[in-house]
Amino acid sequence: MDVEAQETPLLQWKPDDYGGVKVNLTEPMTTEDFVPKLRASLVEWRNQGKKGIWLKLADGLENLIAPAKAEGFKYHHAESDYLMLVSWLSDLHNTIPANASHRIGIAAFVLNSNREVLVVQEIGGPFDGTGVWKLPTGVIKEGEGVWAGAEREVEEETGIKTTFKEVLAFRESHKSFSEKRKTDIMFLCELNMKPGTFEIKKEKTEIYAAKWMPIEEYVNQPWNQEKELFRFMANICLKRSQEMEYVGFSTVRTTTSTGRESYLYCNTDHANLLNATRGPASTSTPTSR
Amino acid sequence: MDVEAQETPLLQWKPDDYGGVKVNLTEPMTTEDFVPKLRASLVEWRNQGKKGIWLKLADGLENLIAPAKAEGFKYHHAESDYLMLVSWLSDLHNTIPANASHRIGIAAFVLNSNREVLVVQEIGGPFDGTGVWKLPTGVIKEGEGVWAGAEREVEEETGIKTTFKEVLAFRESHKSFSEKRKTDIMFLCELNMKPGTFEIKKEKTEIYAAKWMPIEEYVNQPWNQEKELFRFMANICLKRSQEMEYVGFSTVRTTTSTGRESYLYCNTDHANLLNATRGPASTSTPTSR
Repeated sequence: MDVEAQETPLLQWKPDDYGGVKVNLTEPMTTEDFVPKLRASLVEWRNQGKKGIWLKLADGLENLIAPAKAEGFKYHHAESDYLMLVSWLSDLHNTIPANASHRIGIAAFVLNSNREVLVVQEIGGPFDGTGVWKLPTGVIKEGEGVWAGAEREVEEETGIKTTFKEVLAFRESHKSFSEKRKTDIMFLCELNMKPGTFEIKKEKTEIYAAKWMPIEEYVNQPWNQEKELFRFMANICLKRSQEMEYVGFSTVRTTTSTGRESYLYCNTDHANLLNATRGPASTSTPTSR
Repeated sequence: MDVEAQETPLLQWKPDDYGGVKVNLTEPMTTEDFVPKLRASLVEWRNQGKKGIWLKLADGLENLIAPAKAEGFKYHHAESDYLMLVSWLSDLHNTIPANASHRIGIAAFVLNSNREVLVVQEIGGPFDGTGVWKLPTGVIKEGEGVWAGAEREVEEETGIKTTFKEVLAFRESHKSFSEKRKTDIMFLCELNMKPGTFEIKKEKTEIYAAKWMPIEEYVNQPWNQEKELFRFMANICLKRSQEMEYVGFSTVRTTTSTGRESYLYCNTDHANLLNATRGPASTSTPTSR
């Protein structure tokens, strides 16, 4: 066995569920303390047949980044309060899971009883100065569901309270952000107005204007007619406003096999059936629609 | 005007599209060279009313991380070859766009003409050792479409060549990865076998076994019956195998308003209509299904 591994204390570590190792450093440490411990640990982990090594460095431990990279670690991802590095020790095919790769947005289609659609004009972004009236849009937050993000964005931008109804469609747009490496998926969601919130109170910093617009006028805007993707989406909204046959995906609230909060979005007829045939405990949850 | 800003050279920078600044450092720089330039640049950017400052540090520039953080920068995200820091200079509401927050996976439902479904047993992961036969699953790569990722995963895991047909449903699973902060969305996709590839050639390092299994036997596995989310999804597959009414989302290939590759996934009847009524140039593209 390696002499260094026997004599030098190791970094504190835990096994992960995939034959790997997790190290979570939060306390200040000098490079002189860190490097021999890391090297001895790597010898030990190799001896144990460990595969992927996760090294999480909290804010303030920037001095350990270059030494870790010198020992073969690479960046995996970062959040505002930590940096995650990773090293693959095994000769086998690298199975380190991918970093988050997508951003999820929503566009909200809300129709009132006069067949008017809720539209906004945005400050900043690609629509600024175009005069185009567009559906309220926004980005889903970490840990937030598509249905919840759609309800939140509509209320934040316009003050209108709604209930999620269906995902009507979604679009994938590649090379969209983060140095043009990541993909943006936008769910076109239909929402129902809650009673008594007809009056618009627009958000001030991101929205120039918000109003109810006759659906045909919205659809026929030159922008929506000239840009194929927008025309397709506008026509789906128009179809819905005419009560023509178009079935989207609704949500069924459930849990994963390990008990985490989870939602299944499926064909609305099927979702209604699933929700209707479940026990009262399930169907009475506020998010089971 | 600040004396330092007049006398010290600035960092090289470009404006972004949202009133911010992009700095992309790739060449080695000493801390002594970097800090005064960064400070002078920050003074200048504030004077110009710039809001968000993006600082991209390539591999090898780890020495600049701590000094940048000392001037108010925070991590935004990292990829294997760079680290992105960001600082918000403005008093206005911080509109720095979110980091990627989701990982997108697929589960592939492939049925042969004997009403048998393509299933696998995985090495590693939560199913290891359970004996459960499951649909081939995988993670969508950066820049890859849902339809393309589904086709790729099936072929990688089983050797079976397929063509994407529909998204049947999708599930959201919160607090799923990256320190339990991020959300996993998994699209349940139906794919059609291409002629002449009936024979399975399983992948060696991640798959114990792969086979064709009668659909009822697949659905009736205790795991699928006991776990609600799996039961819901298995029943959608069963419904499709019985040629019962269940309409999902198909793809229509298009571009965004700025010309980037883009796909709209919408109700299959509607997608078929859109694809059928477009010109030959559109309908002949291999990915217009």
